[in-house]
Amino acid sequence: MSDNYCKGNIFSQLPDASQREVFEPLSQSTFTHIERIVTQGQVTPEGEWYNQARAEWVLLLQGRARLRFASGDVVELNVGDHIEIPAHCKHRVDWTDENEVTLWLAMHYD
Amino acid sequence: MSDNYCKGNIFSQLPDASQREVFEPLSQSTFTHIERIVTQGQVTPEGEWYNQARAEWVLLLQGRARLRFASGDVVELNVGDHIEIPAHCKHRVDWTDENEVTLWLAMHYD
Repeated sequence: MSDNYCKGNIFSQLPDASQREVFEPLSQSTFTHIERIVTQGQVTPEGEWYNQARAEWVLLLQGRARLRFASGDVVELNVGDHIEIPAHCKHRVDWTDENEVTLWLAMHYD
Repeated sequence: MSDNYCKGNIFSQLPDASQREVFEPLSQSTFTHIERIVTQGQVTPEGEWYNQARAEWVLLLQGRARLRFASGDVVELNVGDHIEIPAHCKHRVDWTDENEVTLWLAMHYD
């Protein structure tokens, strides 16, 4: 039995993301990576796509964002919205609010 | 490439948990299970422990709860608190608020 539980608060001690997007690992296992992402206006560089080997489940906890898929679909994300993105489903972060922090919980998994 | 992304809102259409705790799957893969749990006053039956084969990462999104570990530790959870519970780390839900809904996001993974 292990008792090494580990506690934190997702809204606490948010890093300054005014200059760059900040990725912070929350938990890591062989098949899974959970991270907190703090964004403030950053987007995926024009013409680039995320094309990830792993599936991703992402939950927007604060702020607002917009994703764009290679299919042409555009998805607005507000607080509480979650989206499951299959592996190799090409997408990009098209817009995030410059005037407030956008906080994401992302889980990457095989 | 797959474009079968799947969107929802974690705070929407909360089921009635006044009679029983409600577990709803959000995403499932070989090594991972993500679920939404809605609780309203329910606790783990007295003398019983969760002793899970998988690690669990849980985030409390609404309400309040208290976990108890077999080690004797007691952990209060408020909005935004997350806790990583290793596989086979015996624990129980000791208390949840009867007067409001407690909303959890749980990720179980190998």
